[in-house]
Amino acid sequence: MNIHLRENVVPADAAAVRDIVASTGFFHDYEIEVAVELVAERLARGPASGYFFLFAQCDDRVAGYACWGPIACTAHSFDLYWIVVHADFQGRGLGRRLLAEAEQRIAGAGGRRIYVETSGREQYLPTRSFYEHGGYIREATLAEFYGPDDDKVIYLKVVG
Amino acid sequence: MNIHLRENVVPADAAAVRDIVASTGFFHDYEIEVAVELVAERLARGPASGYFFLFAQCDDRVAGYACWGPIACTAHSFDLYWIVVHADFQGRGLGRRLLAEAEQRIAGAGGRRIYVETSGREQYLPTRSFYEHGGYIREATLAEFYGPDDDKVIYLKVVG
Repeated sequence: MNIHLRENVVPADAAAVRDIVASTGFFHDYEIEVAVELVAERLARGPASGYFFLFAQCDDRVAGYACWGPIACTAHSFDLYWIVVHADFQGRGLGRRLLAEAEQRIAGAGGRRIYVETSGREQYLPTRSFYEHGGYIREATLAEFYGPDDDKVIYLKVVG
Repeated sequence: MNIHLRENVVPADAAAVRDIVASTGFFHDYEIEVAVELVAERLARGPASGYFFLFAQCDDRVAGYACWGPIACTAHSFDLYWIVVHADFQGRGLGRRLLAEAEQRIAGAGGRRIYVETSGREQYLPTRSFYEHGGYIREATLAEFYGPDDDKVIYLKVVG
């Protein structure tokens, strides 16, 4: 699998992100819209949007991507908003590579604390394991934040 | 003190919010900009902005305000973003009144969980006491989230 990483965002990425996020079968429609909206924001406002992307390009397909940004009014905290690998490209370590590359770029931009939010539901056990294997620590749990029996789990990794 | 509450947002509120937030001596310039930006967003996009306001009007002055909104991708969680009383109007229970009125409106809009984020620093002890007296529970603490020795404290109140 010949993967090329790129940071620039092009209009076609809106459709690519929609396709990637939907392919996982993991997200609600309204979550997919949020993912696509961040691409639109970035295209409209550039780096001032506060959204930074890394796309894993496999020939002419986008196989996965990560999206992060600095958290306003903090010294050096960043949110990792999305990290998703298309269903066709899963199980080959691409998520781990995107995570490591995103962390490098965050540290390079002066980031020291990377936060990731995910659900505490059973379905998200692989997601939580992914972050835990990546060195993320469970920093807090907000009970029923997303809905009944759907906690928010906040992970943290200190970098740089 | 004859206080009139209003929910509609007018262009002059941008300057009023800047004045109120700055008057407290509590917020950094970049935080003041964020407060004003939420007014601008609301004026530009209306309720679709996701920002809802309550202004406490004392004759021709805005004495204080609250700003809240539903949290995307949650069933019925809301963020209370700002609740600030102008220095000239503090110490008369106006903050408590704004808080109670905001909570009523959130519950009326289907909100069940209200989250407030503040700093764990010594300076913010009165702020934390304000929420604790208002029935908010300390739900989580994110160590050094804002910066060195500056934790984020997340409060929660279940309503409705």
